[in-house]
Amino acid sequence: PTDDDGFYIPPLNFAMVDNGIFRSGFPDTANFPFLQSLGLRSIICLCPEPYPEANAEFVKSNGIQLFQFGIEGCKEDRSLSKSISKRIRSICHSSRNTTVHPNIELEEPFVNIPEDTIREALKVVLDEKNHPLLIHCNRGKHRTGCLVGCFRKLQRWCLSSVFDEYQRFAAAKSRVSDQRFMELFDASSFKHLPMSFSCSMR
Amino acid sequence: PTDDDGFYIPPLNFAMVDNGIFRSGFPDTANFPFLQSLGLRSIICLCPEPYPEANAEFVKSNGIQLFQFGIEGCKEDRSLSKSISKRIRSICHSSRNTTVHPNIELEEPFVNIPEDTIREALKVVLDEKNHPLLIHCNRGKHRTGCLVGCFRKLQRWCLSSVFDEYQRFAAAKSRVSDQRFMELFDASSFKHLPMSFSCSMR
Repeated sequence: PTDDDGFYIPPLNFAMVDNGIFRSGFPDTANFPFLQSLGLRSIICLCPEPYPEANAEFVKSNGIQLFQFGIEGCKEDRSLSKSISKRIRSICHSSRNTTVHPNIELEEPFVNIPEDTIREALKVVLDEKNHPLLIHCNRGKHRTGCLVGCFRKLQRWCLSSVFDEYQRFAAAKSRVSDQRFMELFDASSFKHLPMSFSCSMR
Repeated sequence: PTDDDGFYIPPLNFAMVDNGIFRSGFPDTANFPFLQSLGLRSIICLCPEPYPEANAEFVKSNGIQLFQFGIEGCKEDRSLSKSISKRIRSICHSSRNTTVHPNIELEEPFVNIPEDTIREALKVVLDEKNHPLLIHCNRGKHRTGCLVGCFRKLQRWCLSSVFDEYQRFAAAKSRVSDQRFMELFDASSFKHLPMSFSCSMR
């Protein structure tokens, strides 16, 4: 149940978060044999777009429950973003000896992660009946990183360790706004949920 | 059993590799409460230096078995390295308008990872009687990355996924020689060992 050479191809940015919890970027058909080897019981998809047909077929035929919590990948005010973008281009055009790609990619420091959605997703993550479980978004960096970061806060990881893990996956794409979201996230309401994870207090 | 504020401080570059297997940089006393929460049965240290007193005391008082497989962190031919370093400085000094720090840091593309040592360490990793187990070196990048990479080859991960994981931890410090070592590592002799890990074939 692997590729032609008998090798497994884990999805981009795949990693084990804790017992029965995995994270990754969007799985492709090439990753299905690997995902089958995990014996997944459920998948949390954090993208709002309809699940691709091949993936929908995969979860159905493997008896995997799909939980979709749609979070926009890039939720900043696009009109504001465009106006800043235009401004930057006009500044750059007015200075000599500067070449700027017209589709200049802006940093996105103000992407809003909806707290309620993360809370609902976290409940699914914490319910061991759903394990083994895979959390994924598109690239496995921002939305997945925020959900995992909130899970780490529940495990009482200090903030710098939460950020260290977030940055390992997001790397150059790390967002201040994501880290601020995790910093502000209040995990205290989850106090009385069952916690039998490897890294939690016993 | 945490820091003053009740937060856990995982070691630098801490992550879960698979069921019962963790990886990290060198644990500090601040990390001990977190490591206690993992209920470790053993630790693999890949550094050749004597284990620090505080760490030795920690493993002893927690009934953790320490396996030390000393691998030099930087094993390139130092005389060769020095002569290259000198050469580069002399080239740079002869060209005008170039400032070079006298202790120019060289890339280390020829660090030798000793295969026999990795094989011995891998046997310890594969023995479930040693789990939960922590693998660590100094920064949790190169030596730990190579051992984990060889473990992934045993799990039949394709090479690009092995490298993707290696690079996530080594980042800008990624070494071609480490990746070449993992590429050449022949995992076939381990075929008949018990494999009941989450990502292995069932």
